[in-house]
Amino acid sequence: MATAADTDAMRRAVALAARGLGSTSPNPVVGCVVTDASGHVVGEGHHERAGGPHAEVHALRQAGVLARGGTAYVTLEPCDHTGRTGPCARALIEAGVARVVYAVADPDPRAAGGAGTLRAAGVQVESGVLEDEAEAGNTAWLTSVRRGRPHVTWKYAATLDGRTAAADGTSRWISSAASRADVHRLRAEADAVVVGSGTLRADDPHLAVRGIDGATQPLRVVVDTRASIAPGARVLDDAAPTLVAVAEDADTAHLPGVDTVRLPAAGRGLDPRALLAELHARGVRSVLLEGGPALAGSFVAAGAVDRVVGYIAPVLLGAGPAALAGGGITTITEALRLDVVATDRFGPDLRITATVPEGA
Amino acid sequence: MATAADTDAMRRAVALAARGLGSTSPNPVVGCVVTDASGHVVGEGHHERAGGPHAEVHALRQAGVLARGGTAYVTLEPCDHTGRTGPCARALIEAGVARVVYAVADPDPRAAGGAGTLRAAGVQVESGVLEDEAEAGNTAWLTSVRRGRPHVTWKYAATLDGRTAAADGTSRWISSAASRADVHRLRAEADAVVVGSGTLRADDPHLAVRGIDGATQPLRVVVDTRASIAPGARVLDDAAPTLVAVAEDADTAHLPGVDTVRLPAAGRGLDPRALLAELHARGVRSVLLEGGPALAGSFVAAGAVDRVVGYIAPVLLGAGPAALAGGGITTITEALRLDVVATDRFGPDLRITATVPEGA
Repeated sequence: MATAADTDAMRRAVALAARGLGSTSPNPVVGCVVTDASGHVVGEGHHERAGGPHAEVHALRQAGVLARGGTAYVTLEPCDHTGRTGPCARALIEAGVARVVYAVADPDPRAAGGAGTLRAAGVQVESGVLEDEAEAGNTAWLTSVRRGRPHVTWKYAATLDGRTAAADGTSRWISSAASRADVHRLRAEADAVVVGSGTLRADDPHLAVRGIDGATQPLRVVVDTRASIAPGARVLDDAAPTLVAVAEDADTAHLPGVDTVRLPAAGRGLDPRALLAELHARGVRSVLLEGGPALAGSFVAAGAVDRVVGYIAPVLLGAGPAALAGGGITTITEALRLDVVATDRFGPDLRITATVPEGA
Repeated sequence: MATAADTDAMRRAVALAARGLGSTSPNPVVGCVVTDASGHVVGEGHHERAGGPHAEVHALRQAGVLARGGTAYVTLEPCDHTGRTGPCARALIEAGVARVVYAVADPDPRAAGGAGTLRAAGVQVESGVLEDEAEAGNTAWLTSVRRGRPHVTWKYAATLDGRTAAADGTSRWISSAASRADVHRLRAEADAVVVGSGTLRADDPHLAVRGIDGATQPLRVVVDTRASIAPGARVLDDAAPTLVAVAEDADTAHLPGVDTVRLPAAGRGLDPRALLAELHARGVRSVLLEGGPALAGSFVAAGAVDRVVGYIAPVLLGAGPAALAGGGITTITEALRLDVVATDRFGPDLRITATVPEGA
């Protein structure tokens, strides 16, 4: 049975795990707290980047001999396989911890089995403590394992009446500085940021993360069916890696040295599923889809949106483009229904976070 | 100086005042709490309907002789004029209250002066206690006094991506049962509910209040430039009074017995300012504008929207009409900027309440 002390330690581990968001792919984020035999915290750690030590190793190093007879709290079931680092189950056994409490079972068939190994070594094992919180903190990675493609967040900014720009196309700034800063946080937490060529032509966006110390830059992805991107586009600078996805017959002669990938077409654009498969193969586990409306519509039509983050500015325009176009929905019964999971204020704006239910 | 007891009593008076919303026009809502000389509550009242006793009279009747030497807390400065009921300042003096605390000064030149009369009679008078709360509770009436027209709330329901219906026009039900029930509360608090002829043709709405015991039915107003309403329209039944506003040259021969008013045209519709002047003359102090998009746009263009209540369903459609059209705004710097004052959940939906700042 989980005690209040167990819950407190796991809550701390979940918070530690979140520090890794955006930098651990293709691995999950994991946090670990180690207490000594009398329950005092003696070690903390989180998985910082793929190829680096796992959370348990960090925490055990900090705890040293004090881990003996203590408890390790881990947000994800400790791994039992030898990858670039040794198996964590083995490290926990060797450190002499008496008890391991984890939140979420590892869904990765290569990694599962840590609990069994621990039990076989006489370690007391409990699971499910703060499972929902830990799962929410690892949504992107868990989705990628379960669906075999990256987790997709569609982000948009619009007015109260659903416009992303005025009738003449002007849009600077519909959303507030606070909202725009939060978008940089979303980018920093994502492995890749995706825009369409329409947004590229209209805004010449840079898409790199600014204003967040130590942020891992996401892969910048431009969906550019006809390879219309100009060699001088800001997104092609060296602030972050960039991938340009083009149609199989596109002419890319004007883009020497640019990382391009050829994908099958779907409708007037590229097949979102093919793009996600390509990104998955490159280790991308979370995608922030930044627009425009047609690209977002193609993802909705492909059933490839998992979460929506909308920044709603308390502004009325009465005319101008909508945030989403052409999702393949023609009547109300086909509407994509989501669950609002959070509403937050960012300056004058409202941020709405909604998720697509499993199976939708 | 206001004490904690003063604040508590005034908070109760503000709550009492709210009970009158939708039934006191052309009068304001007012609440009153009377305490005896030792501070115990001995009387409560609110203004229930125009022509009926004012809040102070209700509370003083309940208090009886216990009011002597006590305090009266009133959300609005007591009136000093003799209308359909006697002046409240006089009633308070005759009841022997030693102190009167009010929240908001009366902006109505016919009614003001109560404080002076009370002071002249030796009553201690204080003002400004919970002024913001009391003012918020009386927003519609205060706006109508200050602007010389009814307070206008524009209500809409839309998807996350700003659609009010799917591409094929279907919209039942974008918003949840909880949201629809809340719209009936908004109607009950309003003196008049306004729709355009497009909404009339598409939905044949009834517009009366359902499901709220004791609700005062609002005046149902149809903006029907060409008098296209069918004599059998549901809005013409006898569940509530109905006014059909038509253009000066409209043919209303098919509408015998229907209350119609002829108004000057503006653009392709009727002049919102002329409609509001007509409603104001009829004693309407608050209007709930229920759509459609062109009508709402004409109100925005006329600077005649004071508050926006949006029910946002966590649904994506990708196509379909927007909630607002043609507000006369063509570029981002002309956008109408509001302040979000509340966000609330209604079932799966989010309700956003935003107000237009003074002077906007």
